[in-house]
Amino acid sequence: MISKARTKFIKSLQLKKYRSSTQNFVVEGTKSVREVLASDFRVTELYATQAFLDENTSLCRNAAACHEADTAEMAAAGSFRTNDGALAVVEMKPNRYWNPGAGYGLVLDGINDPGNLGTIIRIADWFGISGIVASEAVVDLYNPKVIAASKGSFTRVPVYYTSLPEFMSDQNLPFYGADLQGEDVHSFRFENSGWIVLGSEAHGISEEVKKKLSGQVTIRKFGQAESLNAAMAAAIICDNLQRIRNN
Amino acid sequence: MISKARTKFIKSLQLKKYRSSTQNFVVEGTKSVREVLASDFRVTELYATQAFLDENTSLCRNAAACHEADTAEMAAAGSFRTNDGALAVVEMKPNRYWNPGAGYGLVLDGINDPGNLGTIIRIADWFGISGIVASEAVVDLYNPKVIAASKGSFTRVPVYYTSLPEFMSDQNLPFYGADLQGEDVHSFRFENSGWIVLGSEAHGISEEVKKKLSGQVTIRKFGQAESLNAAMAAAIICDNLQRIRNN
Repeated sequence: MISKARTKFIKSLQLKKYRSSTQNFVVEGTKSVREVLASDFRVTELYATQAFLDENTSLCRNAAACHEADTAEMAAAGSFRTNDGALAVVEMKPNRYWNPGAGYGLVLDGINDPGNLGTIIRIADWFGISGIVASEAVVDLYNPKVIAASKGSFTRVPVYYTSLPEFMSDQNLPFYGADLQGEDVHSFRFENSGWIVLGSEAHGISEEVKKKLSGQVTIRKFGQAESLNAAMAAAIICDNLQRIRNN
Repeated sequence: MISKARTKFIKSLQLKKYRSSTQNFVVEGTKSVREVLASDFRVTELYATQAFLDENTSLCRNAAACHEADTAEMAAAGSFRTNDGALAVVEMKPNRYWNPGAGYGLVLDGINDPGNLGTIIRIADWFGISGIVASEAVVDLYNPKVIAASKGSFTRVPVYYTSLPEFMSDQNLPFYGADLQGEDVHSFRFENSGWIVLGSEAHGISEEVKKKLSGQVTIRKFGQAESLNAAMAAAIICDNLQRIRNN
């Protein structure tokens, strides 16, 4: 069972101000909850059906507290219209820069749409991107729609929020911006390590960030659509990047 | 002004059964409304702010009827939380197969998510895909979320709903399925003309459709995400297809 007080608490975490003040966020659905239990995130409360608890006994030991609950209670407490059997309250991680090592990272200059951010995290995870550096205008990583769209990939891809111009000034590796006026991504000469910079759908890459780019890469258009969204651009550029680096 | 009766009618078009019985659907937002007015779709009712009507006088002549309305009325009648100045009631086109000509088409074997279908239509438009053949399980093209996510590309990319196994039996060009067990998309030998087949996120390509494929193509994974969604896969495969055909 989920008590009234805990339902209210879990519901409050849909808002950023309560996530910030408590440093907790919510993960919903059996797949994502299994991923977060297997990760280095700290799960403070797990609510799950008896079936989930029985099938995942060792994983469930990673939660500080486990409670049996039914799916209607989980749907009432969470943001999903229906829940297939698990909901976790999880501690946020401190906003820290990771060690990028060799390879590529992504830089996001203002992505507002939570579905887009979640999808970009999933793409980064698919293509072995080391992590994401986000401008302060980027939607909150712990927004429930970001977590849902990332399909568990938020457990593997670090996201660090910072001021981009300052961050970029401190780095030695090249930054390549995705832009409509750049070199064709099919023949772009990517260095072995670096950063791909994506702008917001509405405004593109900001002028301050553009000044710090080493190059601009373009996805060639063969038809008539006005634009591709940022997640599509991320997918296509990461695929070409890996093709060119590995072939 | 939008009368109470018209508001009710426009709202009803959010449901497929009312779209089917009236053969009308709704397009919202100034950008998409401009695109539909410039297309060969028949706009039966246009509601727009005075500013929109003034700035688009010749386009507005393509609507059978024009009415000045404010954005609050448009938001109340439509599916968007806010509307930036235009809403159109548009006649659906008959479900007809288009002439694919040379080049490539997409085949969708069960896409349920309207955002994914709209995004795939936008990708098809970007990459110059001739059109989309959809299984009967694919979400309705005229769903407001599909129209919104397509960003006007629904006016240029025809979508034809049919039974896929029968359709495929009647075609001579090759069908290539996007699959986890196929040849690397980076080195795949695409014919000059053909079809790319994408399965549903939950179930992949159905067995009946798989039997009719000429080949299977895979997007190489470099990291740990379990899957890519169908729209991401469409974007990456279309980009590689055009790279390989044009280089």
